[in-house]
Amino acid sequence: MGNTHRVKQTDSAMVLLSGGQDSTTCLYWAIRRYGYENVSAIGFDYGQRHIGELQCAQTICDGLGVHFDVLALPVVNTITENALTRAEIPVDIVSAISTKPKDDGNNPPSVPPNTLVEGRNLLFLTYAAIYAKSRGIKILVTGVSQTDFSGYPDCRDIFIKSTNVTLNLGFDYPFVIETPLMWLDKAQVWDLARELGVLDVIKEKTLTCYNGIPGEGCGKCPACELRRRGYEGFMRSQNK
Amino acid sequence: MGNTHRVKQTDSAMVLLSGGQDSTTCLYWAIRRYGYENVSAIGFDYGQRHIGELQCAQTICDGLGVHFDVLALPVVNTITENALTRAEIPVDIVSAISTKPKDDGNNPPSVPPNTLVEGRNLLFLTYAAIYAKSRGIKILVTGVSQTDFSGYPDCRDIFIKSTNVTLNLGFDYPFVIETPLMWLDKAQVWDLARELGVLDVIKEKTLTCYNGIPGEGCGKCPACELRRRGYEGFMRSQNK
Repeated sequence: MGNTHRVKQTDSAMVLLSGGQDSTTCLYWAIRRYGYENVSAIGFDYGQRHIGELQCAQTICDGLGVHFDVLALPVVNTITENALTRAEIPVDIVSAISTKPKDDGNNPPSVPPNTLVEGRNLLFLTYAAIYAKSRGIKILVTGVSQTDFSGYPDCRDIFIKSTNVTLNLGFDYPFVIETPLMWLDKAQVWDLARELGVLDVIKEKTLTCYNGIPGEGCGKCPACELRRRGYEGFMRSQNK
Repeated sequence: MGNTHRVKQTDSAMVLLSGGQDSTTCLYWAIRRYGYENVSAIGFDYGQRHIGELQCAQTICDGLGVHFDVLALPVVNTITENALTRAEIPVDIVSAISTKPKDDGNNPPSVPPNTLVEGRNLLFLTYAAIYAKSRGIKILVTGVSQTDFSGYPDCRDIFIKSTNVTLNLGFDYPFVIETPLMWLDKAQVWDLARELGVLDVIKEKTLTCYNGIPGEGCGKCPACELRRRGYEGFMRSQNK
């Protein structure tokens, strides 16, 4: 998965956790890799449409005994206009469910989906870095995926690698950003959950739905559509 | 000054403005370079000790007719412990007035001054980028200086260059970060103000003092000490 450095007994990790499928799978991945006692999580309340995600994250962390901090970032909502944080703006369904860039596939499309919160991943990683360094934690785990990139430039591997360099220079500290899902598609993320023995937890306890319904969700919004398609792909691969 | 690209008529710039000597000098530098009508400014209220700086910034921008936004980032104060934002923590005078790294001068000292707000410049530049892109502005101007680096890793040129790459990848947008003071010492920053014809404005209308007194300040705190030393160096160079 591109993260091949040897794990030391003393390594500890902070997972950027939203309570959705991807980041929750990363939480279990980090626990398998570093052990419960060396994993903590951080979430961000930026006025997102599906705030119930954070409640899912809290419930999961409570059950695991994993420390979970939620940082309120209301300012993100005041400075950008997008459908993910402004209830009055309808989600652009066509662009949100597109799982591939709309142009030749090598470059981000010129018009990203309107669920994009510009700069979001950089803000989240920077705040996580502040927290992590203050606690002596070097490893940051995030569930971004270039495969499901959908026009979000800040989900690309090259952006994450550049951010890693920038953080290490800015904090004079050897952060390691780990991205276990970077090259997985949605079906493969379900398969990773199976491999980690948490398929049911991910299916039932996480929230992806734009209408705030955990597990299988409303079944109608773009996020539910994406999640369902991924699960179907996973099931097909299991039956082969 | 390391920023040699040709200015186009259509270029517009956003200055990260605190109301202190350095960033205010950058504001006038940007106005000279791009024209009043193409310059705006952004400031950050993160619970800093010398909040009066932002009032100075507002007054200066009002006088110039420059648009100035202030973004409230109270969260910075809740997640880091340092003397610049926590009134109950005394400023470490020895480290704060040191104008050079304490070790061999090539690397940041292992213990930066306790006025350091970890990750501050990366947060500020990221928020400025969000604002700037939403308004079609590509140029970000910041007053950081490696010369006066004092153990702050996020004032180094290499950090700013890395941040520029990270922003451009994360936003898929061609930002240009300009740092007119990067290689100037405090005396040379005064000389730049003279060159721009604003020496008196910088002397009288900006605030650097930790005790919140504009212009020459209290004369006793580390910031006043630094500012005074720089001005004396500038005056000596003028009399040669």
